[in-house]
Amino acid sequence: MDDQLNPAARRARANETDAARDGAAAMTDALYHSTFMRACRRESVPYTPVWLMRQAGRYMKEYRDVRAKHTFLEMCKQPEVASEVTVYAAHRLGVDAAIIFADILLIIEPMGLDLEFAKGEGPVIHNPVRASADVDRVREVESSEVLASLGYVMDAIRITRRELKPDLPLIGFCGAPFTLASYICEGGSSKNYITTKRLMYNDAGAWHELLARISRALALYLNAQIDAGAQAVQIFDSWVGCLSPDDYREYVLPHTRSVIENVKPGVPVIHFGTGTATLLELIREAGGDVLGFDWRVSLDEAWERVGRDTAVMGNLDPVALLANVGHVRAEAKRILDQAQGRDGHIFNLGHGILPETPVGTVISLVEAVHELSQR
Amino acid sequence: MDDQLNPAARRARANETDAARDGAAAMTDALYHSTFMRACRRESVPYTPVWLMRQAGRYMKEYRDVRAKHTFLEMCKQPEVASEVTVYAAHRLGVDAAIIFADILLIIEPMGLDLEFAKGEGPVIHNPVRASADVDRVREVESSEVLASLGYVMDAIRITRRELKPDLPLIGFCGAPFTLASYICEGGSSKNYITTKRLMYNDAGAWHELLARISRALALYLNAQIDAGAQAVQIFDSWVGCLSPDDYREYVLPHTRSVIENVKPGVPVIHFGTGTATLLELIREAGGDVLGFDWRVSLDEAWERVGRDTAVMGNLDPVALLANVGHVRAEAKRILDQAQGRDGHIFNLGHGILPETPVGTVISLVEAVHELSQR
Repeated sequence: MDDQLNPAARRARANETDAARDGAAAMTDALYHSTFMRACRRESVPYTPVWLMRQAGRYMKEYRDVRAKHTFLEMCKQPEVASEVTVYAAHRLGVDAAIIFADILLIIEPMGLDLEFAKGEGPVIHNPVRASADVDRVREVESSEVLASLGYVMDAIRITRRELKPDLPLIGFCGAPFTLASYICEGGSSKNYITTKRLMYNDAGAWHELLARISRALALYLNAQIDAGAQAVQIFDSWVGCLSPDDYREYVLPHTRSVIENVKPGVPVIHFGTGTATLLELIREAGGDVLGFDWRVSLDEAWERVGRDTAVMGNLDPVALLANVGHVRAEAKRILDQAQGRDGHIFNLGHGILPETPVGTVISLVEAVHELSQR
Repeated sequence: MDDQLNPAARRARANETDAARDGAAAMTDALYHSTFMRACRRESVPYTPVWLMRQAGRYMKEYRDVRAKHTFLEMCKQPEVASEVTVYAAHRLGVDAAIIFADILLIIEPMGLDLEFAKGEGPVIHNPVRASADVDRVREVESSEVLASLGYVMDAIRITRRELKPDLPLIGFCGAPFTLASYICEGGSSKNYITTKRLMYNDAGAWHELLARISRALALYLNAQIDAGAQAVQIFDSWVGCLSPDDYREYVLPHTRSVIENVKPGVPVIHFGTGTATLLELIREAGGDVLGFDWRVSLDEAWERVGRDTAVMGNLDPVALLANVGHVRAEAKRILDQAQGRDGHIFNLGHGILPETPVGTVISLVEAVHELSQR
C-alpha cells in the first residue's frame, strides 16, 4: 500500500510512472540524463556531481560588481539580474547544477509580512509574529497570488533556463516551515530563537496554524518554480538544528512533510538542514529524495542512518575552503571515500560558501571532485 | 593495566584510593556525602541533584544591581564581589552545587593576551593569534604565575567556601583548549571560526603547540582552584560543536585529555560541550567523570552512547525556561523519565541561563526536579 510507505518512498514510487518525465515543465532528455538528475534518482553516474550552496554569492567579484549597483532585494526582484548571477556562477565554476538566485524570505511578503534587508544587518521583518494573536495577520495565499507577487522569481527561472547550458539542471528552492517561522517570529536572524520557541511551547495551536499557513504557501511556491522551469527543488531548514528531536517530531515534522508531499511527482526534492545530527531519522521521515546535512556528521554514518534507499548531499565544511588547496583536495577525497562511489551522492558544502572564500579554491574543489570521483 | 583504561576509568580507579578524599583541600564529610558529589561518583542519592549553568547571572536582579556598580572584569577580579553573587544565587535557588563566578578567558591574561570586555560586544582580545608565527607570543605559564596572576579567583573560592552552606559543593572551572583557542585566534566570539580552523588546517604543528601551551596552563589553573577549595571542576568546551568528528579527534581530543588527566585524582571533572551530538564517543575518550551535553541529544540515547559507567549532566533547553511553568515542569519530567532514576544523573540546562529568564521559573524548575525525582 502506498499509504504505508514513507513520503520519500511514496514519491519514489510515483517517480517510476510517466510523471517522472512530466513533473518538470522544461525537462528535456539532456536534463533528465544529466549527472545531477541521475544522482537524485540514485542512478549510476560517470563521476560525482557537485554544486555549492551560495555558489552565486559575495565571494565572487562578478557578483559584487552587480551587487554594487543594486540592493539585495532589487537583485532578487529584477529577473535579468537574478538570472545573470545564477548563470555566470554555474558556468564559471563548472558545477553540475545551478540554483536560482533568490532569498528564502521572499515568500513572506505576499503573506503580509513587511520585509527589509537592512544594510549590514541582514533581514528585518517590521511586523513580526510575537504572540498567538498575531498569527491571524499571516495571510493564507492562493496560487494566483504567489504567481502575481513572486512572478519575478518565475521570470528569473524562465530566463535562466534559456541561458543555461541545455544539460545543466536548475534548482528552485524555498525555506522550510520552521526556518521561515523563526524569521517571522524573531523579526530577523536569531541566536536563541526565544520568541519562536515561546510561541511553540506556550500555544501549540497557534504555532501549528502558523506553520500550516506557511507550508501551504511553500508548496504552491515550489510548484510554481517547477512550472517555470526548475528541474529540482531544495527546502532549506537552515536553523532547525536548534531543536531537540522531541520538539522536531511534534512541532515541525508534519509541516515539512506536507510541503514535500505536495511537490509535483517526478521532481526531486532536496531536504537540507544544518546541525541536524540528532534529527536525521526524523528528517528522513519528513521526506525528500535527497537529504542534505552538514560536516558535523560523517557522510557514511549519516547515509547509513537515513537509509541507503535515499540519495544524500554534502558535506564539506565551508571553512575548509579558506585553507590551502592541498587541504581542500584531501578533504574532498575523504568525503568521496566515505561515499565509496555509491550511486546517489551529490557533493556539496555543509552550508553556504563564505564571503571570504577565494574563487580559485572553489574551482579547484569542483575539479578535484570530478577528477577524484571518476568511475 | 591502568594504562589500558580510558582516562575516565583511570581517574575512577585512582578515585577508589585514599586520594578520593584528599584531592580537594576542603573536602569535609558533609561535602563528600552531598547529593551532588555522590551523583558525580554514581552513588545512590535521595533525589536528583540540580544546578544551572550561569545560575549567578544577568537574569537575576540582585546580580544586575551588583553589575551596575562594576565592569564585568572588575566583578571577576574582586573576590568579595565574585563570592557574593556566587553564594547569593546558589542559596536563593536552592540548587545542589555552586559554581564560582569567573570567566573562562581570565587565564589568557597571564599567557600574554590582552583581554577586554567591550561594552555590549562581549570579549575582545587585542593581540589575537592570526598566524603560525603568533603562537610563540603565547606564553608558557608556570604554577607560581597562575597563582600570582589569578590569585583573585583562588581568593574568591576561599571566601565562597567559607560563606556557602557547609554541605553545598563548590565547582571550579575553565574553558577547554579548543574553546579558548577559538577566542585567542578570532580575537573574540565568532560565527564560523575561520581564523581558528585556518590555523588548524594550514599549520597543524603551530596549532598543536598552541593547544599544548593552553592545556598545560589549564591543568595548573584547575588544580589551583581545587587547592583553594573547589570540590569539583568543570571544563567548558562551549564551541567545540563547530568541528567534524575527524577534526575533533585529530586536533582537539589529545589536548582536552591531557588537561583532564592532570587534574588531581579524587576531584570529579565535568566535561561539557554544546552541539556535540556527533562527538559524544570522542568526548568520552577525552575523559571526565561527568559528561555534559545540550538538549539536542536525548539524555537516554546520549547516556547509552557514552556508557553507563559515566555520570551525565543535562539537558534542558534554556529557552524552555521562557515558557510557562507548566511546560517547564513537563520538560523536567521528560528528562527525569529518560534518566529513569539511575545513579549518576545531575540535572542542568544544556547551556547557560538566558538573561531574559524569569527568576521565579528557575526556582520552580529546581523545586520540580527535587520533587519529581524523589526516590
